[in-house]
Amino acid sequence: MRVVLVGAGNVATHLGLALKNAGHEIAQVYSRTSISSSALANLLETESCTSLDSLQAADLFVYSLTDNALEGVLSEMTQTAGIHVHTAASVDLSVFADRFENYGVFYPLQTFSKEKEINFKQVPVFVEANTAETTAFLKELASALTDKVYVAGSEQRIKLHVAAVFACNFTNYFYTIASEIIEKEGIPFDILKSLIEETASKINFLSPYEAQTGPARRNDTVTMEKHLGMIENENYNMLYRQISQLIADKYKC
Amino acid sequence: MRVVLVGAGNVATHLGLALKNAGHEIAQVYSRTSISSSALANLLETESCTSLDSLQAADLFVYSLTDNALEGVLSEMTQTAGIHVHTAASVDLSVFADRFENYGVFYPLQTFSKEKEINFKQVPVFVEANTAETTAFLKELASALTDKVYVAGSEQRIKLHVAAVFACNFTNYFYTIASEIIEKEGIPFDILKSLIEETASKINFLSPYEAQTGPARRNDTVTMEKHLGMIENENYNMLYRQISQLIADKYKC
Repeated sequence: MRVVLVGAGNVATHLGLALKNAGHEIAQVYSRTSISSSALANLLETESCTSLDSLQAADLFVYSLTDNALEGVLSEMTQTAGIHVHTAASVDLSVFADRFENYGVFYPLQTFSKEKEINFKQVPVFVEANTAETTAFLKELASALTDKVYVAGSEQRIKLHVAAVFACNFTNYFYTIASEIIEKEGIPFDILKSLIEETASKINFLSPYEAQTGPARRNDTVTMEKHLGMIENENYNMLYRQISQLIADKYKC
Repeated sequence: MRVVLVGAGNVATHLGLALKNAGHEIAQVYSRTSISSSALANLLETESCTSLDSLQAADLFVYSLTDNALEGVLSEMTQTAGIHVHTAASVDLSVFADRFENYGVFYPLQTFSKEKEINFKQVPVFVEANTAETTAFLKELASALTDKVYVAGSEQRIKLHVAAVFACNFTNYFYTIASEIIEKEGIPFDILKSLIEETASKINFLSPYEAQTGPARRNDTVTMEKHLGMIENENYNMLYRQISQLIADKYKC
């Protein structure tokens, strides 16, 4: 199948690689900036372009853009045949309505960075489309890339995304806060890695509710006050106070 | 070596097992409540007791208590010979001063739950003591249990603990928030597990600063506003707004 990638970021990179590995032809990579489009086009050994007017015809157009950028690109889209899908968790299927005949959503629930390889077989993919036929097509397409294919409506997908922001994006930000705190003490971040690994692995054996530990879980007010006295960054101090209170409240009753 | 465990919680359980497996004799388990002390004493095939007056003599006393409880127990302590160590991250070594001749800290940096087995060999242990001789003794003791032994002062240890609260306790709480959000939609929490695993694994390849993804990282205001409109729980809504703002600010400059 001939695929055009519209967007050249983290998701486009990993999905493009997975599609290519599954035997599809990546006909072209579009990005607004030539650095991004060339980099991904080189990686996928295909053509790059920076103008929507130069887009080729294809069987499948995959839009992996920030939600802010998607509507602008769609309004200038020149190719209307083929199946058009976006990969955005939080954009409704209806963004495509009245523009194309066949369209859908192909949302891979994972954190992608260009620099980090991924085993796509383990990535859950949520599909949705405007017709039963296109839904079936996207399910089949996804099944060639991953063992975890689901159909989900736009409302469910956005809830999944909110959950993923807490479980992944905010969690990773807390790794950053932790690294700042200990690196300031001259302790390498590496020392926290087995703790982080165990925290993530534990929920395969216990629910996260059961897995909770720490001063707030024990309502250990002496420790929490000591910690607050040591956290100089006022934003981190505020987060520590609020989240500890929420945990303590949850386990008190 | 004869060891008495003072406390029978998560840390006492895992450390007691590790000490026993390393060939030490667990002579006794003390806890204020007989249910806790008996449970751990049974697991370790030893005696339990609920009164500090009945404590036996030992080479090593290990205090694994909430920080709130430790001082009370110490003031009633009947056995003063031997080496006395606590396992608390955020309690200063000086808590033992003028009480015993030999004392120290033996802090395992890990999240322990009784129900979840652990590979103690991978647990970093931070030791500190009142004399060089006792420090050397604790280093040797720790080296039999784990490959990761460090010496850290009380000030450094508390900073490590603050970092661990962010990297582990708060992270796990966010898994709980995520599970509540999707289970309300009838989606099992399992669907987030490969995302959580990848988030934790990614930092072995990238710094957490580099590994950051998500709407706040991209300053994708459209998505963030959509999410805020969908998060009914006002505490979770507040956390989403604050943390997103902090991430967006960090990557804007």
